[in-house]
Amino acid sequence: MSKGKVCLAYSGGLDTSCILKYLIEEGYEVVCFMADVGQEEDFEAAREKALKIGALKCEIIDIRREFIEELCFPAIACNAVYENVYLLGTSLARPVIARAQIEVAQREGCFAVSHGCTGKGNDQVRFELAFYALQPNIKVIAPWRDPVFYERFVGRNDLLAYAAEKGIPVSSTKSKPWRPQHHPPADMWKLTQDPLTAPDQPEDFTLTFEKGVPVKLEYTEKGQQKTVTDSVDLFLTANAIARRNGVGRIDIVENRFIGIKSRGCYETPGLTCLRAAHIDLEGLVMDREVRALRDSFVTFNYSKLLYNGMYFSPEREFLEASITASQKSVNGVVRCRAYKGTVSVLGRYSETEKLYDMTESSMDEIGDFSPAETTGFINVSAIRLKKYGQMKAAAGEKL
Amino acid sequence: MSKGKVCLAYSGGLDTSCILKYLIEEGYEVVCFMADVGQEEDFEAAREKALKIGALKCEIIDIRREFIEELCFPAIACNAVYENVYLLGTSLARPVIARAQIEVAQREGCFAVSHGCTGKGNDQVRFELAFYALQPNIKVIAPWRDPVFYERFVGRNDLLAYAAEKGIPVSSTKSKPWRPQHHPPADMWKLTQDPLTAPDQPEDFTLTFEKGVPVKLEYTEKGQQKTVTDSVDLFLTANAIARRNGVGRIDIVENRFIGIKSRGCYETPGLTCLRAAHIDLEGLVMDREVRALRDSFVTFNYSKLLYNGMYFSPEREFLEASITASQKSVNGVVRCRAYKGTVSVLGRYSETEKLYDMTESSMDEIGDFSPAETTGFINVSAIRLKKYGQMKAAAGEKL
Amino acid sequence: MSKGKVCLAYSGGLDTSCILKYLIEEGYEVVCFMADVGQEEDFEAAREKALKIGALKCEIIDIRREFIEELCFPAIACNAVYENVYLLGTSLARPVIARAQIEVAQREGCFAVSHGCTGKGNDQVRFELAFYALQPNIKVIAPWRDPVFYERFVGRNDLLAYAAEKGIPVSSTKSKPWRPQHHPPADMWKLTQDPLTAPDQPEDFTLTFEKGVPVKLEYTEKGQQKTVTDSVDLFLTANAIARRNGVGRIDIVENRFIGIKSRGCYETPGLTCLRAAHIDLEGLVMDREVRALRDSFVTFNYSKLLYNGMYFSPEREFLEASITASQKSVNGVVRCRAYKGTVSVLGRYSETEKLYDMTESSMDEIGDFSPAETTGFINVSAIRLKKYGQMKAAAGEKL
Amino acid sequence: MSKGKVCLAYSGGLDTSCILKYLIEEGYEVVCFMADVGQEEDFEAAREKALKIGALKCEIIDIRREFIEELCFPAIACNAVYENVYLLGTSLARPVIARAQIEVAQREGCFAVSHGCTGKGNDQVRFELAFYALQPNIKVIAPWRDPVFYERFVGRNDLLAYAAEKGIPVSSTKSKPWRPQHHPPADMWKLTQDPLTAPDQPEDFTLTFEKGVPVKLEYTEKGQQKTVTDSVDLFLTANAIARRNGVGRIDIVENRFIGIKSRGCYETPGLTCLRAAHIDLEGLVMDREVRALRDSFVTFNYSKLLYNGMYFSPEREFLEASITASQKSVNGVVRCRAYKGTVSVLGRYSETEKLYDMTESSMDEIGDFSPAETTGFINVSAIRLKKYGQMKAAAGEKL
Repeated sequence: MSKGKVCLAYSGGLDTSCILKYLIEEGYEVVCFMADVGQEEDFEAAREKALKIGALKCEIIDIRREFIEELCFPAIACNAVYENVYLLGTSLARPVIARAQIEVAQREGCFAVSHGCTGKGNDQVRFELAFYALQPNIKVIAPWRDPVFYERFVGRNDLLAYAAEKGIPVSSTKSKPWRPQHHPPADMWKLTQDPLTAPDQPEDFTLTFEKGVPVKLEYTEKGQQKTVTDSVDLFLTANAIARRNGVGRIDIVENRFIGIKSRGCYETPGLTCLRAAHIDLEGLVMDREVRALRDSFVTFNYSKLLYNGMYFSPEREFLEASITASQKSVNGVVRCRAYKGTVSVLGRYSETEKLYDMTESSMDEIGDFSPAETTGFINVSAIRLKKYGQMKAAAGEKL
Repeated sequence: MSKGKVCLAYSGGLDTSCILKYLIEEGYEVVCFMADVGQEEDFEAAREKALKIGALKCEIIDIRREFIEELCFPAIACNAVYENVYLLGTSLARPVIARAQIEVAQREGCFAVSHGCTGKGNDQVRFELAFYALQPNIKVIAPWRDPVFYERFVGRNDLLAYAAEKGIPVSSTKSKPWRPQHHPPADMWKLTQDPLTAPDQPEDFTLTFEKGVPVKLEYTEKGQQKTVTDSVDLFLTANAIARRNGVGRIDIVENRFIGIKSRGCYETPGLTCLRAAHIDLEGLVMDREVRALRDSFVTFNYSKLLYNGMYFSPEREFLEASITASQKSVNGVVRCRAYKGTVSVLGRYSETEKLYDMTESSMDEIGDFSPAETTGFINVSAIRLKKYGQMKAAAGEKL
Repeated sequence: MSKGKVCLAYSGGLDTSCILKYLIEEGYEVVCFMADVGQEEDFEAAREKALKIGALKCEIIDIRREFIEELCFPAIACNAVYENVYLLGTSLARPVIARAQIEVAQREGCFAVSHGCTGKGNDQVRFELAFYALQPNIKVIAPWRDPVFYERFVGRNDLLAYAAEKGIPVSSTKSKPWRPQHHPPADMWKLTQDPLTAPDQPEDFTLTFEKGVPVKLEYTEKGQQKTVTDSVDLFLTANAIARRNGVGRIDIVENRFIGIKSRGCYETPGLTCLRAAHIDLEGLVMDREVRALRDSFVTFNYSKLLYNGMYFSPEREFLEASITASQKSVNGVVRCRAYKGTVSVLGRYSETEKLYDMTESSMDEIGDFSPAETTGFINVSAIRLKKYGQMKAAAGEKL
Repeated sequence: MSKGKVCLAYSGGLDTSCILKYLIEEGYEVVCFMADVGQEEDFEAAREKALKIGALKCEIIDIRREFIEELCFPAIACNAVYENVYLLGTSLARPVIARAQIEVAQREGCFAVSHGCTGKGNDQVRFELAFYALQPNIKVIAPWRDPVFYERFVGRNDLLAYAAEKGIPVSSTKSKPWRPQHHPPADMWKLTQDPLTAPDQPEDFTLTFEKGVPVKLEYTEKGQQKTVTDSVDLFLTANAIARRNGVGRIDIVENRFIGIKSRGCYETPGLTCLRAAHIDLEGLVMDREVRALRDSFVTFNYSKLLYNGMYFSPEREFLEASITASQKSVNGVVRCRAYKGTVSVLGRYSETEKLYDMTESSMDEIGDFSPAETTGFINVSAIRLKKYGQMKAAAGEKL
């Protein structure tokens, strides 16, 4: 008799294929679930495999638009970055994947959801915190944290043996771990061209932002001027430009939520370009103090909560109100260049925002502002520092 | 009769040459002062020019070591950056220049100091706040904020005419302003190679840090393995490597301290490399929470005070204590690559710091940590989020 | 011939009466302006005096509602406080006063506004920054910063002599300054009862908040249960209760915006009660992480900008979006007690918010949460600290 | 045969007495441990009871000095407070208690430590995180998280029955829980006088601080002037003064580390006085910007880590360096008054710090600062706000 229906996040790979079989053998009925967030994968082959192994069905859900509009765009709008370097690629995908999985689970009458995340990583946390917020009474089956499972499948060989025994076809080969002091093997990078072999000609493109969000991408393909405005198209095109120019490789040692350091090599080509352009535009159109407050508070905290899987939380709602408020004036155009691993900015302008004033900023023109007044500004700003200098001198301390 | 001695920050250019003459004509005796912070300049020619115009003397002070050790290294140690992009090159030089100028002024018996900064920029503020902290009763003569001066010399042509009249030789030609939407002209970049014409072969080098500060740079020159350890040598060598590979160009619209936006194109080649390597190493050796606190607080505020000219201040002392405390464990080695405008990290290790543990972080090995415990961690972390989910559901709101 | 019309912020006191006369003698036509923000003053007597001195007219504008609803309530909603102690009473009034004054100036066709603030204080900054944001081309006449004026009226005696000469009646007597080490004289406190002589019986009252803002105050007067809900009534009633019980005296040495320390003794009776009740209620109904973010960011920065006169600014708009977002759940009732200088909280509840759960929080009941799971939570939280302990032990350092 | 030695944190109460017996019955040898942090308890009676129940021994360790000097004083020095209200009394005691317990455990050869904390509270986390940092391989026995134990002893009656059966004398009576909307019962407060019945005469005293830490307390007892300088004496005397005047009651709903809200009523009489005096003194002697940075960063984070039990951590070391750096100038004297539930400040002065300057701050004296310069300060500060006003006007939006 069935122990009930479980919705399993399925990838088609060795781990989740074995987990699928295992759950079935344990007496569960399993509905497989796959999310399309733009990764290049043979979804149909995976579906077929799932059904062959014994899944009741395998649902493939296209959530690219939600992923891009609800997650990537706010991340760009607040220049999200974790530990100065990591652009949060996978962290951004997890909330929408979890939400789609819960929806499948509810539609299919599953009492539990399951996944193949290991017991030491961030993804288990991100998925499960999302599951619990979305459906507080959901059950979670996490085989890699269940001693019965992980003591039976101690290493990769045990999984391979099980797959062989159960007739599960295996294609992937295991990547060897390498130490943080070593350069990752060239074949580890899956999406981006090696900067060393990227085109010798730079590729220029133009991004238009409204309220901090990209709304138009203009570029040249085979000599033709092209324009994309749909958010999915725009994001995928930015990805493509960045990928062929080797932009967006990240290699770090990061601090996982559970307190372990790990080395990660990530590819976030499109995000890298969009974020760089967005940061640049803010210089032109954003008030200094709003930027300072946003920089010192929102960026860090929004990035941290995304990394730690706290997307479905009151604090995310709270911070998003700040992001929205900060981006009212972030309207304008940025011309960018991708070239051998870098994205740089060639220029920027805004039709609507007027904080920048070339005459005013020119060192050579007086404008409607009297330079003599700066003397008072400096002297008043110095009151406190003169006191400090006097105290230091009185104490015989050198500055 | 002399109105007294003034110490003028002199550059040899049109502005300060005219100011020098003007001050003499106004009845001051003028001691010129030039600071060597590593810029490539013909100091002797400038000295000769100053004396010819009528300076009492012209002091050239080498403050490269102070600049690098007291300013650049703490900036690297806290990953200083202003408005996400600007590495604070000139901001870092100002405090040591001001201090050297005050020392010259005191040695030469000057009652006042003078400079050629415009009345709209940051440098006037940085210099004068430093002057006032270092010698609270110093007088400052800022001709570009004195209506008598700036109404007489309204544009560059007035200066040129004055120079011609007074026999002051003029060499520099005026760069034309260009709009933020335009790419800066190629000849505007003085220090760095254009990434497009930089070498086709990447250049690798290795940096060693102790307590967050670079102490060794290993690189290859003409096939020879070289090592530098002196801080001035190290910094200049990092500069040279970065320059020839086009690393360190910055093009932004920034917010000046006085509240005006301006476009700036800066070159900070060496700093760019050293900062990138330092950030990377911190991932390996720094505790997560110390990093989070430092990132969300020290980096922003230290950068801001440097930008705003608040170096000689109680808050700088306060923040430097935090920087020092944060860098105790930042000991290790980073292998870097400069290539056509980018610096990237190839690998990193530390002999002394042990926070990273390859076995522990491996997804495939259990180690001395029980994955089952993560279930409790997740479930307790979810308590608050489940409440949130319940309240949202009760309110009929979608997550 | 008139130099034009000026709108003067008039108080009826010695300073602004002399300034009024002085401006008229200087050739201006002067429209006096007085704002009623709830202070107890004889506005009609002041108006009569202004007209007698020679004002064209004297406008008295009741802005109590704007003051309370637009300024005091957001301050309460974010628990605003400057330097841990000061509740920003006057800072809160300045923006609405400045706005009303600009409106009068515009209505009356004045080219300039004037005020009697000294050249060392905060109020000049608060008023003028507001003026300039509200009408960027307005002219400001600040006699206490005009050497012609302040060198003529060096001390109070000069003003008194001028008033006598011009027939300006003088009633106020000058309070003597006293040192920060001394208790302020008893007659310095104008609004609040001395706690030592306040009633021996505590006075209890009940405040209801919606979205962080007080909407109902229930109290007892002469044995009668009373209820006020209008925001002006509510605020004035809270003031009255606090005043008679000696609540709301503040005595500090504060840091003014221009960098000078000064001693201030303030009375903010009503705000003290409303803020204390609001903080208490947040404990019951606000999510922990939202509160932590708000506490570490919004409260400090909103208070600072109010203090520094930056109310009409992009950053205030930005921060108010955060305040609003943070207060969605701050709905509930707080029972309070005022007694001899203190306000304390007796209890609180909310009909709508459910984050608090008595069973869940009880140490003696298990609820739907398994205590065993906390073990995992603690052990995972300890991973990082164990590493730290190991490193300390290896280094021979004691914890 | 013994399962080994366990060091149990023992209180003499019902819970830990039952746990002691239970551990012995489970086969452990138990060394009891009690910490004297100044609480008024009959330690000898508790020791006798422990031995009677079967403890190998019972160690009573006086850690009042460590508690006061290592924990309370840094908390005062950074004005620590959790969620605006809670002064962290018990949080401050936990680290030193844990350290003393680990020392006893090591001295006595115990392989494990045990405690009677419940599975929902903060104290279990605080103790265990400290244990694990201090001795990463220690074992922890937490009966209230062990299903075998907590399913056997479901309520208080089960414990009472067990105690009766085992001959364990029981004295304490159970306090009933009460709801957050109700005032706590009068007998709940153990340390402090009810403000309503506290003396009708205020009690004044004088505190002297050096580097942010109290070093002298002067007060009057029976007409005699008294002075204490030893830190333990000083702290206990401050406690006594505050207690008899009803100062230091705290009643909040707080957010526990594990994400549950709970109501807490705490008494921290001495800390309340010392913290209030310290905050006041900082106004007189601390630089504005150092204070702003400390307020917006150190206070919040240090308080949070204390609350969450992260005392033995890299981030605490990091933050303490900031506290130390911030307190160099916090030297001076504060005169205070305790009266019917409140502590207030009567005055303050410093012999050594000179940031406050009465002449300078006087509104009526010019001093060596020219008021006219403030005009420049205001006008430059207004540049940004005028732009904002212009943009708002252009957009037809009202300020």
